[in-house]
Amino acid sequence: MNINDTIIALATAPGVGAIGVIRVSGPATIAIVNSVFRGKDLTEVPSHTIHLGTIRDEEKIVDEVLISIFRGPNSYTKEDVIEISCHGSPYIIQQLIRLLLTKGARLAKAGEFTQRAFINGRFDLAQAEAVADLISSENESMHQAAMNQMRGGFSQEISKLREELVHFASMIELELDFGEEDVEFASRDDLKKLIYSLKGLITRLTESFTLGNAIKNGIPTVIAGKPNAGKSTLLNALLNEEKAIVSDVPGTTRDVIEDVINVDGIAFRFTDTAGIRTTEDKVEAIGVERTYAKMKEASVIIYLIDLINDTKEDIEKQLAYLKALKVPYLLIGNKMDRADANLLNALESENALMISASQKENLENLKEALKTLVSLDDFKTGNTIVTNLRHYESLMETNKALDQVIDGIDRQVTNDFVAMDIRNSLFHLGQITGEITTDDLLENIFSKFCIGK
Amino acid sequence: MNINDTIIALATAPGVGAIGVIRVSGPATIAIVNSVFRGKDLTEVPSHTIHLGTIRDEEKIVDEVLISIFRGPNSYTKEDVIEISCHGSPYIIQQLIRLLLTKGARLAKAGEFTQRAFINGRFDLAQAEAVADLISSENESMHQAAMNQMRGGFSQEISKLREELVHFASMIELELDFGEEDVEFASRDDLKKLIYSLKGLITRLTESFTLGNAIKNGIPTVIAGKPNAGKSTLLNALLNEEKAIVSDVPGTTRDVIEDVINVDGIAFRFTDTAGIRTTEDKVEAIGVERTYAKMKEASVIIYLIDLINDTKEDIEKQLAYLKALKVPYLLIGNKMDRADANLLNALESENALMISASQKENLENLKEALKTLVSLDDFKTGNTIVTNLRHYESLMETNKALDQVIDGIDRQVTNDFVAMDIRNSLFHLGQITGEITTDDLLENIFSKFCIGK
Repeated sequence: MNINDTIIALATAPGVGAIGVIRVSGPATIAIVNSVFRGKDLTEVPSHTIHLGTIRDEEKIVDEVLISIFRGPNSYTKEDVIEISCHGSPYIIQQLIRLLLTKGARLAKAGEFTQRAFINGRFDLAQAEAVADLISSENESMHQAAMNQMRGGFSQEISKLREELVHFASMIELELDFGEEDVEFASRDDLKKLIYSLKGLITRLTESFTLGNAIKNGIPTVIAGKPNAGKSTLLNALLNEEKAIVSDVPGTTRDVIEDVINVDGIAFRFTDTAGIRTTEDKVEAIGVERTYAKMKEASVIIYLIDLINDTKEDIEKQLAYLKALKVPYLLIGNKMDRADANLLNALESENALMISASQKENLENLKEALKTLVSLDDFKTGNTIVTNLRHYESLMETNKALDQVIDGIDRQVTNDFVAMDIRNSLFHLGQITGEITTDDLLENIFSKFCIGK
Repeated sequence: MNINDTIIALATAPGVGAIGVIRVSGPATIAIVNSVFRGKDLTEVPSHTIHLGTIRDEEKIVDEVLISIFRGPNSYTKEDVIEISCHGSPYIIQQLIRLLLTKGARLAKAGEFTQRAFINGRFDLAQAEAVADLISSENESMHQAAMNQMRGGFSQEISKLREELVHFASMIELELDFGEEDVEFASRDDLKKLIYSLKGLITRLTESFTLGNAIKNGIPTVIAGKPNAGKSTLLNALLNEEKAIVSDVPGTTRDVIEDVINVDGIAFRFTDTAGIRTTEDKVEAIGVERTYAKMKEASVIIYLIDLINDTKEDIEKQLAYLKALKVPYLLIGNKMDRADANLLNALESENALMISASQKENLENLKEALKTLVSLDDFKTGNTIVTNLRHYESLMETNKALDQVIDGIDRQVTNDFVAMDIRNSLFHLGQITGEITTDDLLENIFSKFCIGK
């Protein structure tokens, strides 16, 4: 990782646009751009100013451009940065980058600007990772989680934990210095209490990962019910387009079709499933098996009762099965427009919501109920949510190391061992925010970024 | 065309990038952006400066952004302009634009920023049109022609013509004022000379359109020759990929395949053709007919002689035919690696270039010869080249009107009629640079731009 050279990349999306922005960062930035820029002398202009001029290859004008200049450390990378705003022609962009390469810049690797921002201390590793999440965020919840993380919400919690652990470690190590004298600066019980309270914080964070993961990938939601209950019709109505094949023949849907629907900024990853019934058709039988599996794995089940074709007994059987799964569910009575009054009454006592998927009736209420069902309290209250698998794993490792600290205290091992376990937990915690990194780790993280970021 | 409202659009290419740039222009620009920006007070900051801050919807952070401020008339549109550099997430871009729309901006139409730049006198219509050409330029010659036009090269020539015509018109109209006294401020012969010199300039420009069109769309180039002379092999070798089906069976290529090859910044639009021979196969016969048509239409023919299978008599027949077409051609002897020495000598006296398409031998020389063959002197000397069909048509109309001026003078019509014809020629000339426009004309021109430009 050489940060002494000057890197360059297109920072805007590839393709034709009105403008394109080429980003240059590194010690030679201003000298390199100035050598091809005809306009004001860029070595003289103040930071955060914009300058109109031309970029020339010898005397040939490559483009008329606007130069934005950011003098380090007041820039994204904390190095000297120039952003060249040019006409958004891929040909021109290619020519400009080619020209600047001949003047001594080199092409930036994926995420290299952000990696430099991290190395130069603009933000920690968790914040840097949030930049990529922010760019790929596709709905409000992803966006808010990434924004909170980028602005340091998550990092603050981690560094609070870290401080307390460092304090704890220092006490143990102080005792080590006085080892011969067998002093105790803190009672072992108080120490254990502190560790337990740290473990409590970590557990809250690791538990938030279920939600964080759901936010990032969509909340796994299954639409289930007997054949011909209207599952595909409902999915289509929610998707507002004909994604699934709809027919009147029971058992039409055999594939597991996935689609994501945004309900007020929360992504629900819907899985349409084959109808549940015993079947002679082998292909369909496999579909039904998968449906059971999907229902068990789901975070939310939308269960459809067929208000026309189901009997009271049918419904009771289905309800018993549904409740046994212990997965949060929404009970929906479909075909309300043609329903039997007795059935309606029976279902209402089960808090079912009546809809007509084909008539698109009551679908807004269904969406509301769905939102209420998934507990997004952490999300709403702005609590920190772990969305990154790497962070989750480091937190789990930290927790394990803390368990060993407690175990050590309980077994009254010597302070050296306790101190080692604490350092081990600090190691895992430090990997989250990047106090502890390896080249491989950084390579792995930043290679997932886009070029130019 | 309302230029009192404030317009907004994404200015960078759509899709995911490291950053996206949203452009806002119009009288309320600074007030609108300032109402959602948390950072410095944008109403107070100087033009051409950059400011870091957040954009908020109520208290919710939509993004951390860089604001570039351009106070009119020192901006692209000559209005107050702000460019918001945000994270390049389509979701964030959508949210930012949505937010600013609620604050009073409206979505810009295609080309509306450039249209405002034209209306506010930043440049004339021909220059505005060149912005779109510049963005869509795909090679050096397109790029240079568009750059020259955008920077006013073409406009200067037109306005020189216009000035001379206006001067001419003023003399005629002065004579009209003295109509009763039958004075002549300029001899009719001198006037005719002036008109002829203007027509000469216009003719040079209209003639440049052939080249301009070739630059824009590629120079129509046909590879011709007898069946199995190696035409497809040569095209493939030039394309460096297997676009055409190559086989040893004569008559394999039946479709007219088109492809563009860049030779040092000049686009040659290659057309591979069916081999020329009399044929019993009806499908192939149609192909041969098309080949003749294509050869006549071409700007350049690359004619392949088969150095193995052709006899001296064959070659003489082909040469006679080729010369009769009166289209610039390159005579190529193919299969030089296995050629008969007598044939080689015979062809060399015809200035033929020897290659081996299959061995990729001498192809660089072929490209050089191709470049020399197409006269790009105007392009090289930086002379103005008309690349736009609309300009070409207006120039032709101007020329027609000037013919009528001469005709009028010759037929000694009264000055009123001469003045009318001159005004007519001024009208057509004025449409090029936009002194004379209609809403339809502007609509038609700018709707071809991309959104955000």
